[in-house]
Amino acid sequence: MRVRKKKWAVPYMEAHPEYLITEPEKLIGKWESRFKKSQPIHVEVGSGKGQFIIGMAKKHPEINYIGIDLQDSVLAMAVQKAVEGELDNVQLILTDGANVDTFFEKGEVSKVYLNFSDPWPKSRHEKRRLTYKTFLKSYENILPDNSELEFKTDNRGLFEYSLVSLNNYGMKFEMVSLDLHHSDEETIAENVETEYEEKFKQKGPIYKIVAKF
Amino acid sequence: MRVRKKKWAVPYMEAHPEYLITEPEKLIGKWESRFKKSQPIHVEVGSGKGQFIIGMAKKHPEINYIGIDLQDSVLAMAVQKAVEGELDNVQLILTDGANVDTFFEKGEVSKVYLNFSDPWPKSRHEKRRLTYKTFLKSYENILPDNSELEFKTDNRGLFEYSLVSLNNYGMKFEMVSLDLHHSDEETIAENVETEYEEKFKQKGPIYKIVAKF
Repeated sequence: MRVRKKKWAVPYMEAHPEYLITEPEKLIGKWESRFKKSQPIHVEVGSGKGQFIIGMAKKHPEINYIGIDLQDSVLAMAVQKAVEGELDNVQLILTDGANVDTFFEKGEVSKVYLNFSDPWPKSRHEKRRLTYKTFLKSYENILPDNSELEFKTDNRGLFEYSLVSLNNYGMKFEMVSLDLHHSDEETIAENVETEYEEKFKQKGPIYKIVAKF
Repeated sequence: MRVRKKKWAVPYMEAHPEYLITEPEKLIGKWESRFKKSQPIHVEVGSGKGQFIIGMAKKHPEINYIGIDLQDSVLAMAVQKAVEGELDNVQLILTDGANVDTFFEKGEVSKVYLNFSDPWPKSRHEKRRLTYKTFLKSYENILPDNSELEFKTDNRGLFEYSLVSLNNYGMKFEMVSLDLHHSDEETIAENVETEYEEKFKQKGPIYKIVAKF
């Protein structure tokens, strides 16, 4: 998601080092130290304005959440939500998620989320899609065996691509929904929406897959 | 697909033994003898009124096609189309497709098609779905290694189920379309529609997967 530069973003984040991390490599193997409670860590790669990760953190105090985003203008809004919610189970990393396996040790993270990732529709940009095999490899590198990746998107092309990519990588599908907002009640009740999802769920189906490495 | 009983169906089919087979087990290993030309055999399990298999036979004279359906009232219409088209590359089997691996030797068939199969939406009927693992096993038993299964449906629940089932069976996805009739031109041009598809393609997406054993 591209957004207008916000002048307040960087100073605001710098004023909240309790939530913001800019050099995640330095915390490898030590992420527990950033949280009040020692409990499983779930990571969202491409956390945007943070509605999903903050919503999840509020809904699941028994999990520690880490959001990663490259854009300071959107990550600042996630930091703001964490500050306002006085959450002790959220950390936010301002960086490119491509090298996520240099931030975490194998098994340090127990689940990875991707939500409404950039579709990069041109074939020559395939390698930038967050479900391309090199990204899958980096998620696998930080998760214990048999851990889940959850992925939601409204982009048909990206979802078609991702079904093939995850399958070809050898991942085991746990569930697929081709219209998340017209699923069974339990699935809908469990779902935490992103900003984007809230806005676009009326325009067409939201696709979701849960798959294990 | 359930259709009204047609009185003419059985006598008509019996008058066309050049197309109709009722004891397919007797032809195991000898299917080549039923066709004019020795060329690859593709099978459609659940061929209904035959628009797909007859359309494919006309479009691909270099392939021999075998359609299987349990209902005489619909299979008779497929036989009728074969008679009218004077096709020498189509055979039609009147029986349950469940034991397809008792009809063909391993490698005797080179591709399997499923089109708009009965969704059997209730959980307790899972085993009847044509993409349930026991059916996948029977298709695998008749195909050479690395052969394709092609599956189309407009039923979201069945497609979601099938994505998981094919993946869990260890099949390798080649392509997935979540809206076949709004795909690239080549995919649309190649597509041969079933009667059902022709009628329902305006009502919602047609899903398709091609996957290898």
